[in-house]
Amino acid sequence: MPQQFPHTEEHVDHNMVKMEVNLDDIPGEWLGYVMEQLFEAGANDVFYTPIFMKKNRPGVMLQLLCEQKKINEMKKILFAETTTLGIRYYPLYVHRLARKFYKIQTQWGEVTVKQGLHEGKIVQYAPEYEDCRKIAKENNVPIKEVYQKVWEKIGTNQWE
Amino acid sequence: MPQQFPHTEEHVDHNMVKMEVNLDDIPGEWLGYVMEQLFEAGANDVFYTPIFMKKNRPGVMLQLLCEQKKINEMKKILFAETTTLGIRYYPLYVHRLARKFYKIQTQWGEVTVKQGLHEGKIVQYAPEYEDCRKIAKENNVPIKEVYQKVWEKIGTNQWE
Amino acid sequence: MPQQFPHTEEHVDHNMVKMEVNLDDIPGEWLGYVMEQLFEAGANDVFYTPIFMKKNRPGVMLQLLCEQKKINEMKKILFAETTTLGIRYYPLYVHRLARKFYKIQTQWGEVTVKQGLHEGKIVQYAPEYEDCRKIAKENNVPIKEVYQKVWEKIGTNQWE
Amino acid sequence: MPQQFPHTEEHVDHNMVKMEVNLDDIPGEWLGYVMEQLFEAGANDVFYTPIFMKKNRPGVMLQLLCEQKKINEMKKILFAETTTLGIRYYPLYVHRLARKFYKIQTQWGEVTVKQGLHEGKIVQYAPEYEDCRKIAKENNVPIKEVYQKVWEKIGTNQWE
Amino acid sequence: MPQQFPHTEEHVDHNMVKMEVNLDDIPGEWLGYVMEQLFEAGANDVFYTPIFMKKNRPGVMLQLLCEQKKINEMKKILFAETTTLGIRYYPLYVHRLARKFYKIQTQWGEVTVKQGLHEGKIVQYAPEYEDCRKIAKENNVPIKEVYQKVWEKIGTNQWE
Amino acid sequence: MPQQFPHTEEHVDHNMVKMEVNLDDIPGEWLGYVMEQLFEAGANDVFYTPIFMKKNRPGVMLQLLCEQKKINEMKKILFAETTTLGIRYYPLYVHRLARKFYKIQTQWGEVTVKQGLHEGKIVQYAPEYEDCRKIAKENNVPIKEVYQKVWEKIGTNQWE
Repeated sequence: MPQQFPHTEEHVDHNMVKMEVNLDDIPGEWLGYVMEQLFEAGANDVFYTPIFMKKNRPGVMLQLLCEQKKINEMKKILFAETTTLGIRYYPLYVHRLARKFYKIQTQWGEVTVKQGLHEGKIVQYAPEYEDCRKIAKENNVPIKEVYQKVWEKIGTNQWE
Repeated sequence: MPQQFPHTEEHVDHNMVKMEVNLDDIPGEWLGYVMEQLFEAGANDVFYTPIFMKKNRPGVMLQLLCEQKKINEMKKILFAETTTLGIRYYPLYVHRLARKFYKIQTQWGEVTVKQGLHEGKIVQYAPEYEDCRKIAKENNVPIKEVYQKVWEKIGTNQWE
Repeated sequence: MPQQFPHTEEHVDHNMVKMEVNLDDIPGEWLGYVMEQLFEAGANDVFYTPIFMKKNRPGVMLQLLCEQKKINEMKKILFAETTTLGIRYYPLYVHRLARKFYKIQTQWGEVTVKQGLHEGKIVQYAPEYEDCRKIAKENNVPIKEVYQKVWEKIGTNQWE
Repeated sequence: MPQQFPHTEEHVDHNMVKMEVNLDDIPGEWLGYVMEQLFEAGANDVFYTPIFMKKNRPGVMLQLLCEQKKINEMKKILFAETTTLGIRYYPLYVHRLARKFYKIQTQWGEVTVKQGLHEGKIVQYAPEYEDCRKIAKENNVPIKEVYQKVWEKIGTNQWE
Repeated sequence: MPQQFPHTEEHVDHNMVKMEVNLDDIPGEWLGYVMEQLFEAGANDVFYTPIFMKKNRPGVMLQLLCEQKKINEMKKILFAETTTLGIRYYPLYVHRLARKFYKIQTQWGEVTVKQGLHEGKIVQYAPEYEDCRKIAKENNVPIKEVYQKVWEKIGTNQWE
Repeated sequence: MPQQFPHTEEHVDHNMVKMEVNLDDIPGEWLGYVMEQLFEAGANDVFYTPIFMKKNRPGVMLQLLCEQKKINEMKKILFAETTTLGIRYYPLYVHRLARKFYKIQTQWGEVTVKQGLHEGKIVQYAPEYEDCRKIAKENNVPIKEVYQKVWEKIGTNQWE
């Protein structure tokens, strides 16, 4: 029986925003740092897309998702840590599944699995990456094998 | 003289939506299948963009365009067929050209050409890929040569 | 007990070549067709990489792998079906695992699983995509669920 | 003391729009030309993203930013110069920094530096690319060295 | 009757080399300049590929093709103009088609078309981009229309 | 006067190899882990390129550089941690600059700068990312400002 951790109802969030910045005058190594800063400040997601800009410049589009109340904080980081002179943004909706967490026992230890529920039905099982990574490192087994073992256990518990 | 098939007036559609999902925990081979499912269910377009996500993960952003009345159907497929726990979406406008279809005769058979009209003026001639592909396969000629022959015929009919 | 199909020993192949073509004057829709033609003619793999070329051109690098004895046949297709005026190529080594095939029974039917063996030890289990796809289509279940069920069965058979 | 050129206050612009076009039937070499046309007609930015479209087509998404009053002019160019039958667009906000310009003296000549100010504080120093490029070409020095010399001067003037 | 310009026999060149540099600490705007410098110094091709490097860095792989006798000259530019501490390279073969040039008359002026011949058979017709671009600019017609008109003429002259 | 740390002469290394794996059946989150494993085992570089594979699959090409004597160790990790059934590889040359290290004093502490020398002439100054990152974190200043301050000091010391 799944143990319930932080419980979230399925919902459509109307308070999210996507922010975008095009960058053609910044070294890639700063961008690894920028991503870290944005996540620490509460961005829900941050990711990079390769883009082709004018004058034969390979560039990068930074995109981030955050709550609308975080807009100013994100702007401050983007202006301080990147080279941009402008930030664009627009609101969007986010439909999020209900989430439950439970524990799977493996021969190497416990792994948390996140379930995603759509209209009350389980549609996702996501083994926690950090748990699997830790087991793989400590036990010197391929991470692939850890995930596969977790998948086997999910199957046995849930679908038989 | 062009034969008119399903006729569409030029218009700006106010009822479209773009949906986006970031994916870092799904194998690429499932994504070929997901694209197929979304098109079959009536998505107007589906495409993938490579993105760079946290923890050094090469990821994929799935984007799709659909009518707003299709939102729930698309969500259902995305939650069932991908590994995502959230879907973002926002409305947008789509300006579509008027379209006419007519037939070009080539030495290997007929090819449909789609015309696009902006303010009553023909701005696009698009030979139908499936027609050209079929001719190329059946006649063992390069698809490049089929298109080039169609372009020649378009020119002779329309611009002399 | 795994049923053995076409059997291949682990080996390093010294007779392979990679061919590359940069393309900036070809429509993307032809490239889907080209890929198909190259696979039909016996290419071991064909794939596209986005590249940024001179004069602000988004381009595509076609890469293919084939046996050296296939070089002329591949060249013929590339010159006929793409717009290139030159093809580059170089030899490389390919280390291939031994492969075995066996069958997994699911509630919806049989799925072939390909095993890869490195120095006699099983390191890969790859459910056949086409089997999983067929089951998903015919039974109207998510392909994700089919794979997960197969993974569960692999686990039960092999690692207990 | 910085010399002030065209002065802009920091502001959030509510009159911008992003336009997007997916392209799978156009050669890359035309797209270099299209970018040039769109910039000449007053687009604020134009860039390309590689996308993977149906039927194994490597495609390109053209994105542009412009003022809403430019929408029709941009549409006209996109329909005339690309092969698209539809254009999507949506409004967004753009937060722009205040900008000041001043001159840096180097051993090879003058370079304009653009400052970006957020809430009255200088957060960006951007040496003008065209100035640096001209010096590099005329003096046969690496552009890297020109930028580095400008950075040194910025530091000496501003932060001591 | 095609007018023959600089004549090249079809051949496989054994004296070419590919050079590669991974870059994660250089701004994109310098890379536009670097490309220009490498072409001026005689590189046969230069192009950029987006790559994902360690520590969440979006990077760029610069690739260039040149004759082996140009290796030192290319190295000098790469070390001077980029930030790299190492350059990798390997020899490869290049199969080049025979090339002929002839002129097409359009209503706006002459366009050179490059033919590519494989085993004596014409497999490529490539209208010269710079000619088409010039006509498009000077006559204020879409470049698409210029190419299409050239294709029509190629067809009429060559395949009837 | 630069302080010399581990000293390396400029040289062309003839003992390097590039290994490549195409992946279309592995989740992105495993690939972050794989990169880490390969670096720990002594790979000189590891990076990912987005590729478009058959059946509409967005895939990833893993590339790594290592000494030829590391080939077997790398293969072992690739077969264990990824899903691949084959690995390709080929030798290449690597031209590496001579490297010297010295220290720059900033108001926040010391930063190591790596110099690259080509034919005895300094062509590169690379501030160490980890030093700059640490200063930025501990002093709560933008990493951009740390680098800019280091560049200023490099200039003052070296080029006056």
